[in-house]
Amino acid sequence: MAKIGPSLMCADMGNLEDAILRLDQKSVDFFHLDVMDGRFVPNFTLGPDIVKTLRSHTKTPFDIHLMIEEPEKYIDVFADSGADMISVHVEATTHLQRTLQLIRNRGLKAGIALNPATPLSNLDYIWDTIDYVVLMTVNPGFAGQKFIPLVYDKIEQLSQYIAEKQLTIDIQVDGNISFETIPKVLEKGADMLVCGTSSLFKKDNFLEEAMDDLNSFISSL
Amino acid sequence: MAKIGPSLMCADMGNLEDAILRLDQKSVDFFHLDVMDGRFVPNFTLGPDIVKTLRSHTKTPFDIHLMIEEPEKYIDVFADSGADMISVHVEATTHLQRTLQLIRNRGLKAGIALNPATPLSNLDYIWDTIDYVVLMTVNPGFAGQKFIPLVYDKIEQLSQYIAEKQLTIDIQVDGNISFETIPKVLEKGADMLVCGTSSLFKKDNFLEEAMDDLNSFISSL
Amino acid sequence: MAKIGPSLMCADMGNLEDAILRLDQKSVDFFHLDVMDGRFVPNFTLGPDIVKTLRSHTKTPFDIHLMIEEPEKYIDVFADSGADMISVHVEATTHLQRTLQLIRNRGLKAGIALNPATPLSNLDYIWDTIDYVVLMTVNPGFAGQKFIPLVYDKIEQLSQYIAEKQLTIDIQVDGNISFETIPKVLEKGADMLVCGTSSLFKKDNFLEEAMDDLNSFISSL
Amino acid sequence: MAKIGPSLMCADMGNLEDAILRLDQKSVDFFHLDVMDGRFVPNFTLGPDIVKTLRSHTKTPFDIHLMIEEPEKYIDVFADSGADMISVHVEATTHLQRTLQLIRNRGLKAGIALNPATPLSNLDYIWDTIDYVVLMTVNPGFAGQKFIPLVYDKIEQLSQYIAEKQLTIDIQVDGNISFETIPKVLEKGADMLVCGTSSLFKKDNFLEEAMDDLNSFISSL
Amino acid sequence: MAKIGPSLMCADMGNLEDAILRLDQKSVDFFHLDVMDGRFVPNFTLGPDIVKTLRSHTKTPFDIHLMIEEPEKYIDVFADSGADMISVHVEATTHLQRTLQLIRNRGLKAGIALNPATPLSNLDYIWDTIDYVVLMTVNPGFAGQKFIPLVYDKIEQLSQYIAEKQLTIDIQVDGNISFETIPKVLEKGADMLVCGTSSLFKKDNFLEEAMDDLNSFISSL
Amino acid sequence: MAKIGPSLMCADMGNLEDAILRLDQKSVDFFHLDVMDGRFVPNFTLGPDIVKTLRSHTKTPFDIHLMIEEPEKYIDVFADSGADMISVHVEATTHLQRTLQLIRNRGLKAGIALNPATPLSNLDYIWDTIDYVVLMTVNPGFAGQKFIPLVYDKIEQLSQYIAEKQLTIDIQVDGNISFETIPKVLEKGADMLVCGTSSLFKKDNFLEEAMDDLNSFISSL
Repeated sequence: MAKIGPSLMCADMGNLEDAILRLDQKSVDFFHLDVMDGRFVPNFTLGPDIVKTLRSHTKTPFDIHLMIEEPEKYIDVFADSGADMISVHVEATTHLQRTLQLIRNRGLKAGIALNPATPLSNLDYIWDTIDYVVLMTVNPGFAGQKFIPLVYDKIEQLSQYIAEKQLTIDIQVDGNISFETIPKVLEKGADMLVCGTSSLFKKDNFLEEAMDDLNSFISSL
Repeated sequence: MAKIGPSLMCADMGNLEDAILRLDQKSVDFFHLDVMDGRFVPNFTLGPDIVKTLRSHTKTPFDIHLMIEEPEKYIDVFADSGADMISVHVEATTHLQRTLQLIRNRGLKAGIALNPATPLSNLDYIWDTIDYVVLMTVNPGFAGQKFIPLVYDKIEQLSQYIAEKQLTIDIQVDGNISFETIPKVLEKGADMLVCGTSSLFKKDNFLEEAMDDLNSFISSL
Repeated sequence: MAKIGPSLMCADMGNLEDAILRLDQKSVDFFHLDVMDGRFVPNFTLGPDIVKTLRSHTKTPFDIHLMIEEPEKYIDVFADSGADMISVHVEATTHLQRTLQLIRNRGLKAGIALNPATPLSNLDYIWDTIDYVVLMTVNPGFAGQKFIPLVYDKIEQLSQYIAEKQLTIDIQVDGNISFETIPKVLEKGADMLVCGTSSLFKKDNFLEEAMDDLNSFISSL
Repeated sequence: MAKIGPSLMCADMGNLEDAILRLDQKSVDFFHLDVMDGRFVPNFTLGPDIVKTLRSHTKTPFDIHLMIEEPEKYIDVFADSGADMISVHVEATTHLQRTLQLIRNRGLKAGIALNPATPLSNLDYIWDTIDYVVLMTVNPGFAGQKFIPLVYDKIEQLSQYIAEKQLTIDIQVDGNISFETIPKVLEKGADMLVCGTSSLFKKDNFLEEAMDDLNSFISSL
Repeated sequence: MAKIGPSLMCADMGNLEDAILRLDQKSVDFFHLDVMDGRFVPNFTLGPDIVKTLRSHTKTPFDIHLMIEEPEKYIDVFADSGADMISVHVEATTHLQRTLQLIRNRGLKAGIALNPATPLSNLDYIWDTIDYVVLMTVNPGFAGQKFIPLVYDKIEQLSQYIAEKQLTIDIQVDGNISFETIPKVLEKGADMLVCGTSSLFKKDNFLEEAMDDLNSFISSL
Repeated sequence: MAKIGPSLMCADMGNLEDAILRLDQKSVDFFHLDVMDGRFVPNFTLGPDIVKTLRSHTKTPFDIHLMIEEPEKYIDVFADSGADMISVHVEATTHLQRTLQLIRNRGLKAGIALNPATPLSNLDYIWDTIDYVVLMTVNPGFAGQKFIPLVYDKIEQLSQYIAEKQLTIDIQVDGNISFETIPKVLEKGADMLVCGTSSLFKKDNFLEEAMDDLNSFISSL
């Protein structure tokens, strides 16, 4: 079954500990934390100090999504702060193998994130150094955007690519993962769902109910 | 009397709401929030969503310290998220007047931040567009560094400069503001103290007591 | 029949109104305007004020070719100044889908420009958001260069790609489009011809005759 | 008497030849041409091809104001296209002496442009290599902005600096030079007036009358 | 038989003349010189003055590997200093055709270097302008790293690509080319071996013996 | 008496060991090694591996002049390779205090280098963290340029500044230090002379004689 990862930038950012503790009782698979530099993407979110603080409240894996330029400079910092998985954007570094190897050398899972229009040919000589591919299903940088339909094809083609090569690489989808889009992304081959305002973090903040609903929905598919 | 501004990057970042509510009961003068881009300074902290969330919990002024390159791109974003004061680094923009005017056009107080080695001559043709000057007393980017002693001279010289021109500009000091350094920075002319791990945010997290101690100490000087 | 678009950077730049009025009487299909930033390409040409001024003299569509880095920052500016079509370079932005969507959200046609050596695999997950592809047939930045022969293959392969997917995307060719190269680019599948010094703007400045000759030549093919 | 230089980015940019021919009959002292790169300033205007074209229509000196980063890369290009004077921004190059010397080596007058907040201390070890200083009286990048009053002091202090050192350096003022501001900038010591929409280029386009009015006004002071 | 090129950054850099003279007696095929900018790769090595000095001591071809950003700016400098072949990284320039053409215009052989993870699709529209492809078999920037095994596949696929198109393009391999890896890179189709600390430059500095051993080894395969 | 430091980029770069051994017999005070990144200055020279190799041949102090952007990234690398003194350009880093402190933390002498036009006001709040100031007397990046006369004033003013504050900071002059300029730079207050092609490294390569001549000349002043 697909793994569910709440996107913490969509939680109440004034009290992330609370979100983590409540979600943990509903056994989430991983927490997704977006780091932004105001340059690769036009926004800022959180940094290593927040990761370190949250780390002490849970054992659930932390999946750090580095939406920053030259991510190689910050692998050690986030590894030290408690990351279990780190993904970097293929558009943000010219030393992709070095960066991913750096993540693995720290004992973490290494992911490649691709912007919606970025071709899969970027994986041709790096698939042996990755544990997951993050397919952006919206443009990165903001919560609450529309799902880009052509990415359904991309999920499917990546899924075939992985099957043909008999790899054990997870497909993570990130952006507007909702009750509407989940059935189709799963059908196409997605393994990890980053869940934000479209599915989990509603205005009423009934996190537990939302998590139950989401789990039921996915089980029913 | 000098204004006290807790530096929220030194609080428990997993629950900033709690820090704000507890500190507000002890009537702080402003909250200081550092924004970093991993480029102007080698770290990341927080972004506009955290500011917006915290805004709903307090009426105390928010002082946003933009430790980022090209800060002009983010003035509107932070003004919209609830800032009352925004400071930008003179080293980070070549369009200083435009950036500061942009802050004032939004109805906010505009500050200039200077790295430890940056000369005061940078104020020569901009003093009419600033409400406060942030003198960095450590190198920006990290909590817990040593106070750079030459900045005492700088505070004094800026204080004289302001007096000679009969300006109403506050001097904010930021970095290792402790019980050891406070008497001297006040004596030299500082008006606003950014208080972090050196004075307020101790490991025991007895925030209220720390705030009381700090207030008593400053009153006693 | 292929659409003809005079490249205004090849006209008398001291009196572009005259060029536009004269060419309009010969019913051109679009005007092509190159914007350069001295960084993506080593030259400067014109900006939004020129576009706005020219806009008042013609109803012929304006095709703005942004040879600039981070084109996403200038979509609104050129849309406001009167563009009907805007193309951006795939090499100049890491947020291709966002940039093209921005163009379309303004009600304009969106184009992707590719440098001579840039592979077509860049179109794999963005073909639903583009109205035309600009294949550079010379290196961008200067008028009067030699046509790069390998681009003939590229036109043909793009043409097949479009046919296979049954898309309605135009192929624009830009650079040394002359009486010598036109037959072959049309044969390979080009739809839009950017015409500059090689075909239209001669030293004698007999624009009307040149336009007639060009039309006759193309009709005769 | 102060020299008057029409700012061509404020003329009808679709027919700059016309503006030049008409203004030349009223004997202007120089033409001011702004080059922008969309990066140092958020706009684009014109490039070397326009300069070269206009050059053939007048013998009046061309004053090229490079509002671009790394201006050293474009000195030769603009010298070749017909510049008589070139100014570069002190904020845009770390090799100021080399860049100015390059301009002079080409037989042109070399100018330094300073943004409104940039201190005069930047001239301390370069005054022997400059022919004029451009004091920006608005923030560069756009026509039609408000004059920044603190620059009056700057003109005066630069004027004193030049007098004390007995230099022959002109002070050029650029930005909102109008009937309102001219008396005071002249009184403070300005030598060269860049005249745009505030004084010369009105909507009615009666350029000759506007030029007469401006000359009369200045003579009457 | 494969061409052997000693990598001079692995020789005694305090006396490169000696290394060249000694190796020349054993008839090497080319000398490989790495240029680094501290930005594209995190190291510095040597520049045009060293190349020029060494040029006077040998007639063996110099193969300059530009591990720098914007290599187009330095083609002339290295051509002037004595290069016979220059390779540039596809990740380091957006004007690949222009840069390679520039190398050829100087009468030199032009090469494209690809980082380990960079896909071969980058060659699709540029194969007619290249004389050799440098496949990095380690991450560029440092001597003494581990060979990345997935590059064996890349060599093979590039070899097939060249055969299918019937091109005369050499495949150069660079990084940990040792007695262990040579048999397999040759089997996969490599033509040029860059030999450094793994095969030629040992601590004992018995260069002649090492060169003999290497030649014997390769002949025996 | 002034200290003499041969500039190794002016020696025979194919055999720097020889230059070092021969010069050492004439007891030079320090060796000056320029590192360039092709970006801060338009040239490349040498890197840490050369420094390390040369280190084993002499005990004379190595003075590394980093003509590179963001020098803070390479302090450790050059400290590890054998530097005794490192100077960084004030124009190349916005974190001057941090960078200089980093050099001192490694137990090395820290220097600030100033381009010819860069004002001395940059020293106002950093003089307690520097051991020497490098006044560039030519524009950095190439050997064999003309001395910029205004720098004589700068040496004098820096000398007065140091005397007034009673500091122990050396003044190093770098660029066209010749028999013609030496008397005047010494008279103005220079303490350290970087000696290149103008004084020491002649075409005949009679290094020992040149060194004797230079010593005699300076003694005779």
